[in-house]
Amino acid sequence: MTARLDAQIGFLKEADKLKSVLRASRLVSGARRENSAEHSWHIMLHALVLADQAGPEVQVDRVLRMLLLHDIVEIDAGDAPIHGNPDHEEMARKEAAAARRLFGLLPGDQAESFRTLWEEFEAAQTPDAKFAKAIDRFQVPVINLENGGGTWDEYEVTLDQLDTRVGVPIRRGAPGLWDWLLPKLTAFFARRDGTA
Amino acid sequence: MTARLDAQIGFLKEADKLKSVLRASRLVSGARRENSAEHSWHIMLHALVLADQAGPEVQVDRVLRMLLLHDIVEIDAGDAPIHGNPDHEEMARKEAAAARRLFGLLPGDQAESFRTLWEEFEAAQTPDAKFAKAIDRFQVPVINLENGGGTWDEYEVTLDQLDTRVGVPIRRGAPGLWDWLLPKLTAFFARRDGTA
Repeated sequence: MTARLDAQIGFLKEADKLKSVLRASRLVSGARRENSAEHSWHIMLHALVLADQAGPEVQVDRVLRMLLLHDIVEIDAGDAPIHGNPDHEEMARKEAAAARRLFGLLPGDQAESFRTLWEEFEAAQTPDAKFAKAIDRFQVPVINLENGGGTWDEYEVTLDQLDTRVGVPIRRGAPGLWDWLLPKLTAFFARRDGTA
Repeated sequence: MTARLDAQIGFLKEADKLKSVLRASRLVSGARRENSAEHSWHIMLHALVLADQAGPEVQVDRVLRMLLLHDIVEIDAGDAPIHGNPDHEEMARKEAAAARRLFGLLPGDQAESFRTLWEEFEAAQTPDAKFAKAIDRFQVPVINLENGGGTWDEYEVTLDQLDTRVGVPIRRGAPGLWDWLLPKLTAFFARRDGTA
């Protein structure tokens, strides 16, 4: 039992590094960029609060576990900003290696079940994973609207690009959230681009 | 439905402030103090990974929800360092007011259920709450052992005080974790106090 606990606590200490992985997006206040650990907490809170936006087949507790684990690979692979045009194949390779190393610190049964849950999230095909992805995409636009544009200015993002990169996954997993967001995005971009 | 969503998203934006509440404890690397949002993520990960340390009556998914919400009151009430000898009655009053205001931003049904879950955590009487409290207490000693003493030096903590403030709640909710921790604490304090 001690060897099992040693391995589990070794993993938990290594996971602490997620607090030092910085994302492109900022806090609502705009004060600084957010890190992937606090981001993970915040989107879990989104999933719990916005659970009534999920389809009836979604199990919110499975979604919470998925979101708890979903960014841990970034400890090795880094965060790939959605508007930064990352090389998706290269990122997928790096993240798969990261999942093997990081979850591999755990006892075998947990390493396997955590990696499987992370792979389900990445594949975004099950109802739980579609809702988790939608929630993960929804948080940043809400923050950007609050702090005057955030990452959209930095990456020169258009409303069309936002529809593809953010609108598509949100509509797949939580369409009501896109209905709420779209008029606000449209008004924001019209103002920003001087067409309002 | 829009008024409901407006309220929910208003709460989620306000909750972002938890990322700016600093705790006494530091990252494993010692680089900086940790904030209460990333701490919440980290102890949820502890609860999931260390679930086999919980009694058979503990529902880990309820514990995860509890830990997701447990520190939100600190947005108004601040963090009270465990070794800082806070005025417990005054803190309890401030935290109850914080719970009313913050969870009160949500639609009525959610405000009620979130506040009830937070009160269960605070009371630390149910099996789920006892395990959640044990996990919350376990994380800092592990971090302090890694970074050379952390908050123990700052607050001049003795092993006896640690037994009362940390040992008691850990033994109540996850005794196996105390069995793992105690020899390491004993060795650390013996070295520090020059009795080894």
